[in-house]
Amino acid sequence: MEHKIGLIGCGTVGQGLLEILSSKAADLKETYDFEAKVVAVNDKIKGSLVVPEGVDIPRLLKVLADGQPLEAYLGGKPGASKSMEPLEMIERSNADIIAELTYTDIKTGEPATSYIKKALRMGKHVVTSNKGPAALHYEELKKLADTNKLFLGIEGTVMSGTPVFNLCRSGFAGNNILEVKGILNGTTNFILSKMEEDGMEYAEALKLAQKMGYAEADPTADVEGFDALAKIVILANVLMGGRLSTSEVKREGITKISRPDILQAKKDGYRYKLVAQAKKDEAVVTAGVSPQRLPLSDPLTGVMGAQNALTFDLDLLGKVTIQGPGAGKTATGYAILADILAIHRRGRK
Amino acid sequence: MEHKIGLIGCGTVGQGLLEILSSKAADLKETYDFEAKVVAVNDKIKGSLVVPEGVDIPRLLKVLADGQPLEAYLGGKPGASKSMEPLEMIERSNADIIAELTYTDIKTGEPATSYIKKALRMGKHVVTSNKGPAALHYEELKKLADTNKLFLGIEGTVMSGTPVFNLCRSGFAGNNILEVKGILNGTTNFILSKMEEDGMEYAEALKLAQKMGYAEADPTADVEGFDALAKIVILANVLMGGRLSTSEVKREGITKISRPDILQAKKDGYRYKLVAQAKKDEAVVTAGVSPQRLPLSDPLTGVMGAQNALTFDLDLLGKVTIQGPGAGKTATGYAILADILAIHRRGRK
Repeated sequence: MEHKIGLIGCGTVGQGLLEILSSKAADLKETYDFEAKVVAVNDKIKGSLVVPEGVDIPRLLKVLADGQPLEAYLGGKPGASKSMEPLEMIERSNADIIAELTYTDIKTGEPATSYIKKALRMGKHVVTSNKGPAALHYEELKKLADTNKLFLGIEGTVMSGTPVFNLCRSGFAGNNILEVKGILNGTTNFILSKMEEDGMEYAEALKLAQKMGYAEADPTADVEGFDALAKIVILANVLMGGRLSTSEVKREGITKISRPDILQAKKDGYRYKLVAQAKKDEAVVTAGVSPQRLPLSDPLTGVMGAQNALTFDLDLLGKVTIQGPGAGKTATGYAILADILAIHRRGRK
Repeated sequence: MEHKIGLIGCGTVGQGLLEILSSKAADLKETYDFEAKVVAVNDKIKGSLVVPEGVDIPRLLKVLADGQPLEAYLGGKPGASKSMEPLEMIERSNADIIAELTYTDIKTGEPATSYIKKALRMGKHVVTSNKGPAALHYEELKKLADTNKLFLGIEGTVMSGTPVFNLCRSGFAGNNILEVKGILNGTTNFILSKMEEDGMEYAEALKLAQKMGYAEADPTADVEGFDALAKIVILANVLMGGRLSTSEVKREGITKISRPDILQAKKDGYRYKLVAQAKKDEAVVTAGVSPQRLPLSDPLTGVMGAQNALTFDLDLLGKVTIQGPGAGKTATGYAILADILAIHRRGRK
């Protein structure tokens, strides 16, 4: 079965996906009878490209690696490709799956939310790694997808490609999720780990995180807990039926944690982690993000560096923890593929 | 969609499944449009029961709780139920799914393997928690299932209901599994934990494990690594395409580990774990079970007591660890339900 994919956004995630589609093409064909063509690509900076019969992916990757605009793929003939805005591309391209991979705006969820709505209204499945639409408008988008019998995949929004939503859909099917509790932001976990393991002060650890590409120049979204907040709201709403909005969830970052706090915790047999947590009591879902002193018996305390982990408390299975990458080109690119493969499984049955 | 289930074996796992089917009936109907009837039950000790229209599960659980034979469900009318052997029951009952839940014989895989073959030849799906058939005859049984377009579910053979096979099928789809490394036997992990945490000698910790019902009177299968061995052979063959037999895999138990060994490891920043491991190099799959000193940075070292955990090394995602229950009535009963729900998902599409 062949899928035609349109990419809106062609940064790290999009290129990670393209690399996997290229390197795994033969495997995926053989194992799952899965074939994918990339028929449209749009990027705010790199321009746009529409190739209804599907691009040659290695050649496109070369164009991107060379820092050229997407149009260069067509050999630079003037007028070979008409530049298209995302909404127009979603409407006019022959893609049956739109991979929405633009930047996260956690205040409005735009323009991603408009792209996703447009795609679903046009009868196209959507897979996205964008936290904005999932944290702010999931209920509305899911309803739109269901009405049109389409798949809305958001695996990449939490813990990159480490299975969370896929895991709940199949591995935990039949369980009621009573609580989720996790380390969902790798940057802050890296900083806290460095403060404990290497005796760094906060400012020094942050600087190292920035140098290693874990933290951005303006680290607010990570260190003040906004990123973890968006993720826990997504988990609470998608997995536990909550209707939380990001503004009503308590949030505290790691900027007030000092090295002495961390060393004292260590002495007491505890470890500081930035914990994102959501709970269901009766039918009421609550959530929060805050630095917590966890006892070393908690599986989350073993998660060091930029890794992520999430503990589920399930009515049938009890506590189950999954730990894996929370970021990275290949891991996030894989999250998009995982959702596309879920669409493929639906279609094959 | 309604499924008719026949249970071969009605001990802890079977009763765990019955309890879940009873308590979750309304939820499963509402969430997945899933309905299950139990139309036949056979147990070596408790006798047999055939009710083509489906038993009243709470009433059957009452009979079992009272220690009565299965026939007592029918009110004790003489001749109300003809006693049936498993093979006859598989052939003659109207079950479309056989849950094979008899005891594990790791040397022959019998009689379970014969039951499974019979069921698959009769066109019935099979779900099993029995390690014997999966460790010894998986390739043959899987071929038989595929030929007949049937599902062979073995989620309960490793880590009880904590998702392993389900996780690989959907959550890791598209990944190549390069290595698995895990703590797959809760009894030995409990003993090692007690030796380290409470300063017990091996004999004392074993006694406690026996008292708490983790270890059997004859603890050989656990402490000599046979149980972990069966599980790693299953993982190597099912997930990595190996063709290992249990006899050719290296195995060492925990009986030679002394308290001083454990304390020395602790001093050095390590922790002893009974590690089951399988690797793929080129296309060659190897496996082994042995006590290993793991550095505390290894996620497996945080797994204390009777829990299980498994780290996958994946070509796209890198290392992902899942930790959860490895035994227990509800957790193993759930493993069977998880596979039945997988059959349900196949059927619905």
